[in-house]
Amino acid sequence: MVRMRSNVEAMEAYVPGEQPAAGVKIIKLNTNENPYPPSARVAEAVRAELGDSGDRLRLYSDPKALALRQAAAEVFKFPIERILHGNGSDELLAMLFRAFVAEGETIAFPYPTYVLYETLAHAQGAKIGSVDFDRDFNLPKELFGTDARLTLLAAPNSPSGTVYKPEQLRELAASLTNGILVIDEAYAEFAESNNLELARELDNVVVMRTFSKSHSLAGMRLGILFGSAHVVDGLAKVKDSYNLDRLAIAAGAASLRDTAWTAQNVARVKTTRARLDTGLKALGLQTIPSSSNFIFARMQNADIAAGAYRFLKERGILIRYFPARLLDDGLRITVGTDTEIDALLAALTEYLAKKG
Amino acid sequence: MVRMRSNVEAMEAYVPGEQPAAGVKIIKLNTNENPYPPSARVAEAVRAELGDSGDRLRLYSDPKALALRQAAAEVFKFPIERILHGNGSDELLAMLFRAFVAEGETIAFPYPTYVLYETLAHAQGAKIGSVDFDRDFNLPKELFGTDARLTLLAAPNSPSGTVYKPEQLRELAASLTNGILVIDEAYAEFAESNNLELARELDNVVVMRTFSKSHSLAGMRLGILFGSAHVVDGLAKVKDSYNLDRLAIAAGAASLRDTAWTAQNVARVKTTRARLDTGLKALGLQTIPSSSNFIFARMQNADIAAGAYRFLKERGILIRYFPARLLDDGLRITVGTDTEIDALLAALTEYLAKKG
Repeated sequence: MVRMRSNVEAMEAYVPGEQPAAGVKIIKLNTNENPYPPSARVAEAVRAELGDSGDRLRLYSDPKALALRQAAAEVFKFPIERILHGNGSDELLAMLFRAFVAEGETIAFPYPTYVLYETLAHAQGAKIGSVDFDRDFNLPKELFGTDARLTLLAAPNSPSGTVYKPEQLRELAASLTNGILVIDEAYAEFAESNNLELARELDNVVVMRTFSKSHSLAGMRLGILFGSAHVVDGLAKVKDSYNLDRLAIAAGAASLRDTAWTAQNVARVKTTRARLDTGLKALGLQTIPSSSNFIFARMQNADIAAGAYRFLKERGILIRYFPARLLDDGLRITVGTDTEIDALLAALTEYLAKKG
Repeated sequence: MVRMRSNVEAMEAYVPGEQPAAGVKIIKLNTNENPYPPSARVAEAVRAELGDSGDRLRLYSDPKALALRQAAAEVFKFPIERILHGNGSDELLAMLFRAFVAEGETIAFPYPTYVLYETLAHAQGAKIGSVDFDRDFNLPKELFGTDARLTLLAAPNSPSGTVYKPEQLRELAASLTNGILVIDEAYAEFAESNNLELARELDNVVVMRTFSKSHSLAGMRLGILFGSAHVVDGLAKVKDSYNLDRLAIAAGAASLRDTAWTAQNVARVKTTRARLDTGLKALGLQTIPSSSNFIFARMQNADIAAGAYRFLKERGILIRYFPARLLDDGLRITVGTDTEIDALLAALTEYLAKKG
């Protein structure tokens, strides 16, 4: 039996949130998907690219994904040569590790955050400089002034839903002595501010966006990255040439251009988020003010939170519970439709009545 | 400016074959795409997954791509837990490098072959043990008995179109002291033999297939890998979780199950391949017997071959010319439709008349 690289032998695979089988009736509030369908222009664009016979699928897709990047350049008013496309922003993260992090080099991120950063560090054989958040998820001072090759921040952060002040991130970028500040803005459309301007101005900042949340396209695997021309050119070297298929490129370009639809989609989610926050507080949960499409809410202790997760699951309501340090007294609840949130709140009420 | 890893700074990006802009009338025989549309079941399956509104696209795709792997397990009669799915077989190759090759370790392949192996080696910081083929593209003896972590063979090889005897590859696998034999069977459906049995029997052999050639799905980015459970589990650790989108999974499963269509598609290409071979020989070109969907044909010298490439390009016929050692006197011509091949042969006749 041939052994893999020792770091790969030792590592655990990233475990995505549960995906129930098709046809099972559940309320799915566990992986921060959007409860509403994508823009109608997406299905139109996919059908147009497909044609009657699918004939165009016999030809390779565009390695440069020009149609998608052109749409992004126009919508975000960002130079097209400084935009890169990924098969989900997960792939863009993987490219950043491959391009910047040699074996034994250090990357940094606060804890708790998106678990994939740690998985990618293990896959690359990197050292992990992880710093705990305080209980309010403020930017840890220890991240400033390091020589980490990548400093990774989800902004808004998951599972907390919290944001950082752009001035803080500007200072952080300026303080880094040998690396890139990666601002993973998967949930930025649900926040009141974002950091795209930092990627525009600073050579050592990249900002990533995903289509999985605000565009309702988790199933299409699309992400884009904004950075300096030097960084984007370098990442392109380690990118799979044809990383996006033809239908994904068409879907992404159509979705980006339908800005009115995205704005409406985001507004609906934010309205329900307020309703969820109010409902959770009324039940005595301690919610963290959320700038994303989910809410992290703490309960009295870990037993009660874990019990709530199981109680909801038995009733066909999936939320995310992290049996981990600093998180095990909380629940991460994706903002679904109003009906879904009402069902969740009713079930939580029942659970708490039983416990009480 | 933050520097990338030194191996990434130094490397050149892989350069895919030219992709003409949409709408330009050309005969495209340069990237080994299939001239015929995919199975009609592909477009049906994509439309079914898309639905009216694209609603399902809001949910993540299946990280395990069960529908696709189940189809592969049935069609190839191979245990499903020993099959892995890739965003094209290029992504599967990248996973093999990430899982098996630490910085400074060696990988091996014969030269000339698929250029991506070298690109991936540079991206991983690997040492390259490359061994020249003889003029008939026989398996080089120097590849036997090494401790290379990956020994990469395209079978059929590109750009030669040649195959190896399965017994030879079995001996090669047995001789490797510390690594995996990767048999890249992108073109295997066009050959009279393949090596899937070696992946079934031997722990240190993986076989990869692509949907880009015999399935006419280059634009959908689909590949599958067959290997031992240990290797497949290890590769899954370094795989992007959601590496295939929903439409790709549906398209791939439908295409795999339409075995009658694939057989007919391959048969048509092989018939035209014979016609192309006869035509090229009649013009005095020296063709290498091809087991793939392209033919490599040598001309009198590099100047004449390079001139032929340019002459054809001016007339809207794209073929592949490699200005490289051992290849610069030849042309690699993808098997198109009969009409396309007739146009190519007519243009080559004209070119040779002018030269003569």
